[in-house]
Amino acid sequence: MGRIHDIILVYEESKGEDFIRRIEGKRPLFIHVIGTTETAKIPGLSAAGKHPELTDYTPAADAELLLLGSCKCIPGVPTTPEGIPTPALITMTAIRLADIPVLIVNGGAKVKPHTPFIDLGGKAGKDIRSGRAVEDAEEILIRARSIGENLSKLADYLVIGESVPGGTTTALAVMLAMGVDAKMKVSSSMPENPHELKIRIAEESLRNSGITFGSLTNDPVTAISCVGDPMMPAFAGLVLGAARKIPVIMAGGTQMGAILAIIKALDQSILHNIAIGTTRWLVSDRFADLKGIISQIADIPIIAADLNFGQSKFEGLKAYERGFVKEGVGAGGAAIAAMVKSKYFISKTVLFEEVEKNYEKLITLR
Amino acid sequence: MGRIHDIILVYEESKGEDFIRRIEGKRPLFIHVIGTTETAKIPGLSAAGKHPELTDYTPAADAELLLLGSCKCIPGVPTTPEGIPTPALITMTAIRLADIPVLIVNGGAKVKPHTPFIDLGGKAGKDIRSGRAVEDAEEILIRARSIGENLSKLADYLVIGESVPGGTTTALAVMLAMGVDAKMKVSSSMPENPHELKIRIAEESLRNSGITFGSLTNDPVTAISCVGDPMMPAFAGLVLGAARKIPVIMAGGTQMGAILAIIKALDQSILHNIAIGTTRWLVSDRFADLKGIISQIADIPIIAADLNFGQSKFEGLKAYERGFVKEGVGAGGAAIAAMVKSKYFISKTVLFEEVEKNYEKLITLR
Repeated sequence: MGRIHDIILVYEESKGEDFIRRIEGKRPLFIHVIGTTETAKIPGLSAAGKHPELTDYTPAADAELLLLGSCKCIPGVPTTPEGIPTPALITMTAIRLADIPVLIVNGGAKVKPHTPFIDLGGKAGKDIRSGRAVEDAEEILIRARSIGENLSKLADYLVIGESVPGGTTTALAVMLAMGVDAKMKVSSSMPENPHELKIRIAEESLRNSGITFGSLTNDPVTAISCVGDPMMPAFAGLVLGAARKIPVIMAGGTQMGAILAIIKALDQSILHNIAIGTTRWLVSDRFADLKGIISQIADIPIIAADLNFGQSKFEGLKAYERGFVKEGVGAGGAAIAAMVKSKYFISKTVLFEEVEKNYEKLITLR
Repeated sequence: MGRIHDIILVYEESKGEDFIRRIEGKRPLFIHVIGTTETAKIPGLSAAGKHPELTDYTPAADAELLLLGSCKCIPGVPTTPEGIPTPALITMTAIRLADIPVLIVNGGAKVKPHTPFIDLGGKAGKDIRSGRAVEDAEEILIRARSIGENLSKLADYLVIGESVPGGTTTALAVMLAMGVDAKMKVSSSMPENPHELKIRIAEESLRNSGITFGSLTNDPVTAISCVGDPMMPAFAGLVLGAARKIPVIMAGGTQMGAILAIIKALDQSILHNIAIGTTRWLVSDRFADLKGIISQIADIPIIAADLNFGQSKFEGLKAYERGFVKEGVGAGGAAIAAMVKSKYFISKTVLFEEVEKNYEKLITLR
């Protein structure tokens, strides 16, 4: 795989290189989309909280970390059950180092962050097995598109990340409904990816909604409404509104497959303005297959920040090298934007050292 | 008074000219701050709705008009009891003609718009005679400042307008608390300005809070909390966050006196980046005195869009020439930004003709 400084060209390499050249010297805006779903509380599915109820706090706490530099709605920072810290730490470090502005968009989160956020009128998502996972998906999408349109007149490009515990399972269900074979391909924040459980939940949800594989390929709003999560219409709407005019980095892992399928069904004409930005950890994951998902949908580039925490003095950060967390809160895309905006002065080493410092401060605070 | 094309230099003329030159060729963002206060329901005080309860809908309806081109939470558009349409019509026309992006910020509104908006966690304001008009004023201000800071990294300058029925009375009370003699000087959307009633309400409110003239000159947060409205901390916070880095047009009438007093008390170092943008109708009002208010606070420029609806075929628009409405929803500042951004191709005539068309469409819709 080719690379540009510390950015790896993972898929559609020449398009990826073009994309990076187009955003060099330009003014980014980072948007963090939050949402929650009761799906995250199914035992064994998500590692986003020590107790299932804590998954409601993770997106809000991530938003607080990005905007305020520390969390308000929980003590410390969100961690996995093993104590591995949220990737928001990387995102926060990247946007601060590169002085990138940030906005929070609430697609539908049970716990609201103690920060300003753009409200789209969305509510927290239900368990996808109910078949009625997201209320008002179309309205959320329309409102998000309006925000995307308006912000595309201001920023030169957008980097959009997300935080929704349980999100790979809802993504799997939406992808199956839309004809993307994502079984055994979605990622996990745990090294042992509970693929079987995710597939069982997703298939049960489709059955309960009367959906079969691919039956909603051209009806993404119904797919979201039945088996998605409230981050999805917000994220997709932002991209749909902005990418008509400016480049957009969809910053995330395998969940981006669901977003991309939604976007492709609604407006193929903007695909040339989209890249997926992620981390090396995510693309090296032997238990997931981002490229195998994206290549089924559209030939858009995947680029990855070559981050490495192997030299960290903290076990929590070192664990990223052992397959924990990997991606989230747009960490990879934010790192890429910070590298490009700083003319690559912000390298993987600079980022690692600053993440190390910020993590030290935060655990001392606690 | 000097002028630059159709912009009148009303006060601090050379600073005003400098300000306009600084924003020429630059990229603006229009922000509309909404809020409601029970104060608006005091009989005789506000003309923002046919019935006092309707004042709760006006800010949301104005926001919808700006973002969507028509209102959703009410039929038609907000009007005065005499049927004179909201100045949001002018703002909407200006930002659309000049392709200016817009965001809605909710300082604390009882009715939420059917649009995306930035939530600051604020609640609707209480009657100022209670002495507990605004909850969490400091937190709203802090959150708005964070938004202002982030947006100042994106936009080249901000134009901030507001919509809060009853707002001149709350502004009067805050100005008196902060030592600005605004009696008989605040404007009104009605030709017969109920100055005596406003003064009586403001003075009663100060008395109930144990505030005397000027006793809170250095404590704006307490002034807002006791006798202000929830638009104020949001508006002031946005300016405080943004004007450290970029120019800001405070788009409004005499209420801007209260905002300016709040800002001056908290950070004098940003005053060089602020201008007040308003309309000719407002500065020609014989029953109000914007210059007399602003000159007591700071030597910042006042500039006014020279709008004229005298040739309208609609009585509702012609009435602007007879002292109805005059300003609101940042109409004057939005018109100025549209003129400057278009290199003055958008003149008073172009604006008038387009307002006429948009109004015709909207009343036909109804």
